[in-house]
Amino acid sequence: MTEKKAVVLVSGGLDSATVLAIALARGYQCYSLSFDYGQRHRAELDAAERLSRASNATEHRVIHFDMSVIGGSALTDMDIDVPEQPSEGIPITYVPARNTVFLSFALGYAEVVMADAIFIGVNAVDYSGYPDCRPQYLSAYQAMADTATKAGVEGRGPKIYAPLLHMTKAEIIQQGDHLGVDYAQTVSCYQANESGQACRKCDSCRLREQGFSLAGRADPTRYY
Amino acid sequence: MTEKKAVVLVSGGLDSATVLAIALARGYQCYSLSFDYGQRHRAELDAAERLSRASNATEHRVIHFDMSVIGGSALTDMDIDVPEQPSEGIPITYVPARNTVFLSFALGYAEVVMADAIFIGVNAVDYSGYPDCRPQYLSAYQAMADTATKAGVEGRGPKIYAPLLHMTKAEIIQQGDHLGVDYAQTVSCYQANESGQACRKCDSCRLREQGFSLAGRADPTRYY
Repeated sequence: MTEKKAVVLVSGGLDSATVLAIALARGYQCYSLSFDYGQRHRAELDAAERLSRASNATEHRVIHFDMSVIGGSALTDMDIDVPEQPSEGIPITYVPARNTVFLSFALGYAEVVMADAIFIGVNAVDYSGYPDCRPQYLSAYQAMADTATKAGVEGRGPKIYAPLLHMTKAEIIQQGDHLGVDYAQTVSCYQANESGQACRKCDSCRLREQGFSLAGRADPTRYY
Repeated sequence: MTEKKAVVLVSGGLDSATVLAIALARGYQCYSLSFDYGQRHRAELDAAERLSRASNATEHRVIHFDMSVIGGSALTDMDIDVPEQPSEGIPITYVPARNTVFLSFALGYAEVVMADAIFIGVNAVDYSGYPDCRPQYLSAYQAMADTATKAGVEGRGPKIYAPLLHMTKAEIIQQGDHLGVDYAQTVSCYQANESGQACRKCDSCRLREQGFSLAGRADPTRYY
């Protein structure tokens, strides 16, 4: 029996840790992929490495690229401050075309390892301000991916799964608790320090803290 | 009057040099974008820089990433030799999801500079073995791009143009000659040396040499 393979985008945050656990629970041999793209919160990369190793992912690869070359986001442009209040519309922490770039590398990696699936932790509930976290975006990406690669053209291209798409943060945490995810090992903060401690102020910290509270369990996050 | 802006993917080769000249001739203010992705033929990056400067592109940015992290192509994997004979089907020089990755960075850059267009020098005639050089791929990419970004969602996302899509190499050269492209400055060879001299043996060299011959003009390429 050939084992099913999946490329899993693992950022080191709460969502992608849960997605990795879901992919493993669905029986996939997992190829974990992370990006060092000049983001402020590099502690998440250490978390991605730890999580991938702890979960017995087959391999963990990190692709380095410098998104600050094109600028345009508080997460990669050091001249723009990370906001500490919720904002209307698309937030300044939005990185232009980020999920498109991530999925495109995943598509290439999937082709090399001949993966059947790509798992991504996007979520349309809490992050509805990000255009590339919506169902219609993922469908359009799938249609494009099916024409883009050797595997796609031959009808064996990877299916893109976003199992968290319609879940609230609390539901994600409950699912992850059920699968044994160690959330103390994850880093979600946009401006975490080098030890992975969180600010408790940015959008990402606020959503995470609220998620643990609504899930009715203690918040294991280490704050500075 | 607001000037039209275009992100132009410039590799330093014959095709993208022609595309840059076409975008400029169509009145676009051009933002030239190149990639250092661990390709063997790095001399093309110097060519991209020279061409962008000579053509008065508004800016030229280079994004570095390491495609060899995921492997799978003779162009980035030093364990695979560049073939010197034409092959059937999809060639081993195909880089998994390369144009998808390139277009995705272009999409992000287009969003930052608020570009109306993205120009890419793909060609379905000479490179029909590459899945991501076909018209149906580009249409699917456009549909995805229109859902992927802030600009796309607001109905002002960039249009993707591939003006060389249905041209033969000889037609591309004739068009470029008409627009004054200096082909001696371009590097197409998959294994060019550091001074940008070409091998005259790889697929890319063969197609280029044949193109100059069919265009009925002298080949300005410097061979080693």
